[in-house]
Amino acid sequence: MMKKGFQVAARLGHHTPFPRTLRILPRLSSASAFGSSTDSLVSRFLRKTDFKDYALPNASWSPDMLSLYQEFLKKTNSEGWIKLPSFKSNRDHVQGLKLPSGLIATSAHLSSDISPPGDYRIFTRCIQVAGQGYEYVIFFHPTKKKSICLFQPGPYLEGPPGFAHGGSLTAMIDETFSKTAYLAGEGLFTMSLNIRFKNLLPVGSLAVLNVQVDKIEDQKLYMSCIAQSRDQQTVFAKCSGVFLQLSLEKESP
Amino acid sequence: MMKKGFQVAARLGHHTPFPRTLRILPRLSSASAFGSSTDSLVSRFLRKTDFKDYALPNASWSPDMLSLYQEFLKKTNSEGWIKLPSFKSNRDHVQGLKLPSGLIATSAHLSSDISPPGDYRIFTRCIQVAGQGYEYVIFFHPTKKKSICLFQPGPYLEGPPGFAHGGSLTAMIDETFSKTAYLAGEGLFTMSLNIRFKNLLPVGSLAVLNVQVDKIEDQKLYMSCIAQSRDQQTVFAKCSGVFLQLSLEKESP
Repeated sequence: MMKKGFQVAARLGHHTPFPRTLRILPRLSSASAFGSSTDSLVSRFLRKTDFKDYALPNASWSPDMLSLYQEFLKKTNSEGWIKLPSFKSNRDHVQGLKLPSGLIATSAHLSSDISPPGDYRIFTRCIQVAGQGYEYVIFFHPTKKKSICLFQPGPYLEGPPGFAHGGSLTAMIDETFSKTAYLAGEGLFTMSLNIRFKNLLPVGSLAVLNVQVDKIEDQKLYMSCIAQSRDQQTVFAKCSGVFLQLSLEKESP
Repeated sequence: MMKKGFQVAARLGHHTPFPRTLRILPRLSSASAFGSSTDSLVSRFLRKTDFKDYALPNASWSPDMLSLYQEFLKKTNSEGWIKLPSFKSNRDHVQGLKLPSGLIATSAHLSSDISPPGDYRIFTRCIQVAGQGYEYVIFFHPTKKKSICLFQPGPYLEGPPGFAHGGSLTAMIDETFSKTAYLAGEGLFTMSLNIRFKNLLPVGSLAVLNVQVDKIEDQKLYMSCIAQSRDQQTVFAKCSGVFLQLSLEKESP
């Protein structure tokens, strides 16, 4: 499954002071240069597979998390929201596709003897015991280009005793950005994240992440997120992020 | 072990537009208001315990990671670097101490029935199989107020196929910031992180995180980090962060 060519550093930025050996951005000036509509991206993303969907309720979900999940599930019938499946690895999400060939190169100064054992996991599904790590589900609204992520951090995501690690919340936001950016406009790579923490998030409690695409410009998607309690009385963090647009390529047979 | 009082949202910021119910910052104007010197913080941090130290070489470490580890280990004898132990939970690191009582409050709108199962892990030690998740070790220099973190992401930290999730690198930087900020000046909470990704970091390769305290002002520590390949030819990310200074309190017997 693992392409040898992925053993690279793939450069993400335009204007860096660092020596550059690879340019991944073709000279295109508008989002419309990318062929895929949100509808076609969503329909590919939602196609039936045998992969296990981890974004389903389990016994570890708090009553708060469960009831809000059910509320949004109803909105998938009437209000245009879509529940995104969540597989073990992004490889399962992008089946038949691969990163652009511009990203595939070898680089002598990087470890070249990575022998992948085959068991890869997307970071936010790295912990396999229900309730101990990341519990989350993402709902996406194609027309509004918004997402809602219901996130319940388990005790393996701890930072300060009793609270989620800031890094675990940041990763959850990045992952929600990532799926949203991809479906809303083929945003493929995080270029930057800017997060301000406002309140500590207790382990086991529910954070509701409201994500939206603010604008698409110069092949970049500008995203923002507010992570807060269900009643919106407590803000845990506010975050903005910039994603680079890039088309996945069809795998050669 | 778990204090009931940690079931709260603890506010981290001064000037937020959000309703605030809790003020954690006492009116102090300089870092010197905090009693603990770096020496005393370090010596407490390094005291002998029975906890397992996860920041030790194992069979999953690449030759690159191992040799750089040994290089820095030599510098602990001659150049003032200190190898930080890394326990399963921050609870083990701060034994006998607890978060400031200003942080301990109840909040009706947050989940109040968290019954901790007792198995807590610091997020960056959440994956227990060697080599699959986070492999890292942090060296700290008390005089220079700098840290070096050697980080080898495993296949459970994946984002794009073959590469580390941006969120996993961000969390590793946040954790290195966190330990550095605490030892350099009782920096206890991440207030903000600003990260720019420059190159994708291949799973299984080595990233060297260079962290430093840029300044301490108004009870805040300003930190910066550059994450790059060992030969410094490839920059994976640059990050800045602000930490809030606050003293841990002695646990009552």
